[in-house]
Amino acid sequence: MNKSIHYFFFLSLLLISPIAKAQEGDIQQKVDNIFKTALKEGQAYDYLKYLCKNIGPRLSGSPEAAAAVEYTRQVMDSMGLDSVWLEPVMVPHWYRGKQEKGFIIGAEELSVTALGNAVGTGPAGREGEVIEVKGLKEVEELGEEKIKGKIVFYNRPMDPTEFNTFAAYSGAADQRGLGPAIAAKYGAIAVIVRSLSISINDFPHTGSTKYQPLIPKIPAFGISTLDAEMLSTRLKNKPKTRVYLESHCQQLKDAPSFNVIGELRGTEKPDETFVVCGHLDSWDLGEGAHDDGAGCVQALEAIRILKHLNLRPKRTIRVVMFMNEENGLRGGRKFAENVKKNKENIFGAIEADMGGFAPRGFTCTGTKEQITQLQELIKYLEPWGVTYLKSGWGGVDISPLQSYGTVLFGLVPETQLYFDYHHSAADRLETVNPRELHLGAAALATIWYYIGEHGIENVKLQKD
Amino acid sequence: MNKSIHYFFFLSLLLISPIAKAQEGDIQQKVDNIFKTALKEGQAYDYLKYLCKNIGPRLSGSPEAAAAVEYTRQVMDSMGLDSVWLEPVMVPHWYRGKQEKGFIIGAEELSVTALGNAVGTGPAGREGEVIEVKGLKEVEELGEEKIKGKIVFYNRPMDPTEFNTFAAYSGAADQRGLGPAIAAKYGAIAVIVRSLSISINDFPHTGSTKYQPLIPKIPAFGISTLDAEMLSTRLKNKPKTRVYLESHCQQLKDAPSFNVIGELRGTEKPDETFVVCGHLDSWDLGEGAHDDGAGCVQALEAIRILKHLNLRPKRTIRVVMFMNEENGLRGGRKFAENVKKNKENIFGAIEADMGGFAPRGFTCTGTKEQITQLQELIKYLEPWGVTYLKSGWGGVDISPLQSYGTVLFGLVPETQLYFDYHHSAADRLETVNPRELHLGAAALATIWYYIGEHGIENVKLQKD
Repeated sequence: MNKSIHYFFFLSLLLISPIAKAQEGDIQQKVDNIFKTALKEGQAYDYLKYLCKNIGPRLSGSPEAAAAVEYTRQVMDSMGLDSVWLEPVMVPHWYRGKQEKGFIIGAEELSVTALGNAVGTGPAGREGEVIEVKGLKEVEELGEEKIKGKIVFYNRPMDPTEFNTFAAYSGAADQRGLGPAIAAKYGAIAVIVRSLSISINDFPHTGSTKYQPLIPKIPAFGISTLDAEMLSTRLKNKPKTRVYLESHCQQLKDAPSFNVIGELRGTEKPDETFVVCGHLDSWDLGEGAHDDGAGCVQALEAIRILKHLNLRPKRTIRVVMFMNEENGLRGGRKFAENVKKNKENIFGAIEADMGGFAPRGFTCTGTKEQITQLQELIKYLEPWGVTYLKSGWGGVDISPLQSYGTVLFGLVPETQLYFDYHHSAADRLETVNPRELHLGAAALATIWYYIGEHGIENVKLQKD
Repeated sequence: MNKSIHYFFFLSLLLISPIAKAQEGDIQQKVDNIFKTALKEGQAYDYLKYLCKNIGPRLSGSPEAAAAVEYTRQVMDSMGLDSVWLEPVMVPHWYRGKQEKGFIIGAEELSVTALGNAVGTGPAGREGEVIEVKGLKEVEELGEEKIKGKIVFYNRPMDPTEFNTFAAYSGAADQRGLGPAIAAKYGAIAVIVRSLSISINDFPHTGSTKYQPLIPKIPAFGISTLDAEMLSTRLKNKPKTRVYLESHCQQLKDAPSFNVIGELRGTEKPDETFVVCGHLDSWDLGEGAHDDGAGCVQALEAIRILKHLNLRPKRTIRVVMFMNEENGLRGGRKFAENVKKNKENIFGAIEADMGGFAPRGFTCTGTKEQITQLQELIKYLEPWGVTYLKSGWGGVDISPLQSYGTVLFGLVPETQLYFDYHHSAADRLETVNPRELHLGAAALATIWYYIGEHGIENVKLQKD
């Protein structure tokens, strides 16, 4: 009988002991209560409705972002948390200005939108021949001879055979992030990037692009997948096709803003804190419903439910609405900076930023042992459709905490539809289902309570 | 060391043997191929588009149902299956006629729709005082004194705290199925039933009601959840509220129709057959997209993929489009009748009839041992989001096979949104996501191939 079988045998005995059974039943009852409360009287959808319909999109530095800060502060305040505060942070303020124009000279209009952080063309616009490429490497290979004076059209689609659409997104996002800078290096006058969406539709998607030092900044646009297909077909027949593009975006002065934070203090270890968060800022198209109004209101609802059901864990639980995830990460960086400065013990953090769809599991940056320790949690969540906790990513806003030693988690919902909406005018409240949203909130409340009670073994925080 | 540990130990050795590993890898590769084919070049959504947009709703006995029979026969024919045939069956032909009317006398209109199989009021309509009840038992308790001459309004909502919305549906569906007959027993003149939907919206839902022998048939209506709430509030303030209802539905003569069947013969045991199915008929509101166009096209797509990838299992696989699930089950009964008559060995059958959402697992009527035997299947499906095979329901159309000994399965997708659409005008193609639909088709193809290869242990079919 080898060691692992010994362990298995011992575990079997343990699992069937009456005390263990009673404790399990007790936890299951609490979890069921959390979920039933969320499904019966969940507030998350109402919060989201306010963010989407009364406030609207919330780009960093905009008045709407300020409204969202004040709204969520008031929501936290109304819950009677132990403390609610604003953490000041200066954020970049990119402004789209007048609606973009794009058309094929002598032919169709194109559904285009400026990429976030991009420079505009101004009223003169840019006109040029279009060269289609499948990626950054192809631009490097074509070099200045083929690229100079042209509009570079990145048209590598997301891989539809990936089950996890976030993996498909990662596989294509370099075109948006670095494509404009690489094209500029070889003298391109502007860039068009195929929208990061698997489905074929007429919504152009925005999202950050990143210019590089010493390389000129050139105007950059997202184009709808439908028009990307059309333009590509046309280029096969008419390689000399010329396109006109116009955008009026600009980078304004940095603006003051805040992370919004609330806390329920732990009953036994108040100095150990577990964070649940989303990001309050959104792109300026659509309403930021899935990205990331959903994550914000799920985090708010989770702490509301715990307070309401009087499920205050041993360790402190903190809810954070981060500012400026989309184009700067200033909120996440400021938060981590202050955590280090104040030597706070943030042993764990979970971000909800993958859309408000039915929750399916969690990913975690912890060690194999830590993930094994926390598997029990899944037993209680399985009846509610949440079936795994496995190694993986946390979230953008909490990523600066990782170097500090914090164990990071991500809430993973069903991902099939997310990129139909993400960063586009289609990201509206109507695409969010209240029950799915509330199930996600309950999943957050459960992991929050469970880890607040049990902690995480062997977390090694850097002390300076 | 007890026996189960022996078994565990033996199993561990087995699982890590190089041959077993190679076999596993081989199966995983086939499964991955099935899913990637579905996601990259799936046809199910195109089939569904034809059913929904070119044909439309397909109530039994309607010309549209006949078109759907011929369309799906042609689809099967085009795949080059070994055989394709039509199984004749006479079906009930209920006809809605002119649009229903409903209003509160002197006040609002009501969103109502006749329940399936119901008698109509005819042009004279019915007018009466409304009495609200929460269920059948309350009607029995109130008795003739309170019920006679009234319109009975069943208004018990689906339980929103159930995770599985089908369980919530089952908990409220008696009001629609038996409510009219019970109310008629005590002299009610008509019945209104709160639509079986958790969300509050203005779509009335239809669905079968069942009259009882020797009890008069009275007109019966579904009312939208929004108007059910409104009417209930009004009755609290004005208990003498009167309502007018009008419907023109009638039961026509039975009509000839068909189950549509196709087959790929097994390579080694062609006389053992595993069935995959959906039902081709739908209610006449909406387009029958989720119920059950989705299940039909997933079954078609599953066999198309297996044929295309040349994954022909040892046992025969048969695809069936059943007719008349919604209001009679004549197709399911005829199929079972012929199976018995012809002494066919249908050892297993799976129905897809819970909507075209992302697949999550399977339920099965098999024994504990059979379910354990098939667990391995889930290992290959987990990377694609299908996480369980557990004891439970098969499907309505295949239910008559159970007495014959067939092991039944159900494909279970995410269920949160299904009853927002089910049996209402909202059940349209636009609510189906192609990727989710195609994932479900791939899950069907996988279980079909796997069970076609491995069979099910200890199936005991009745021989007469």
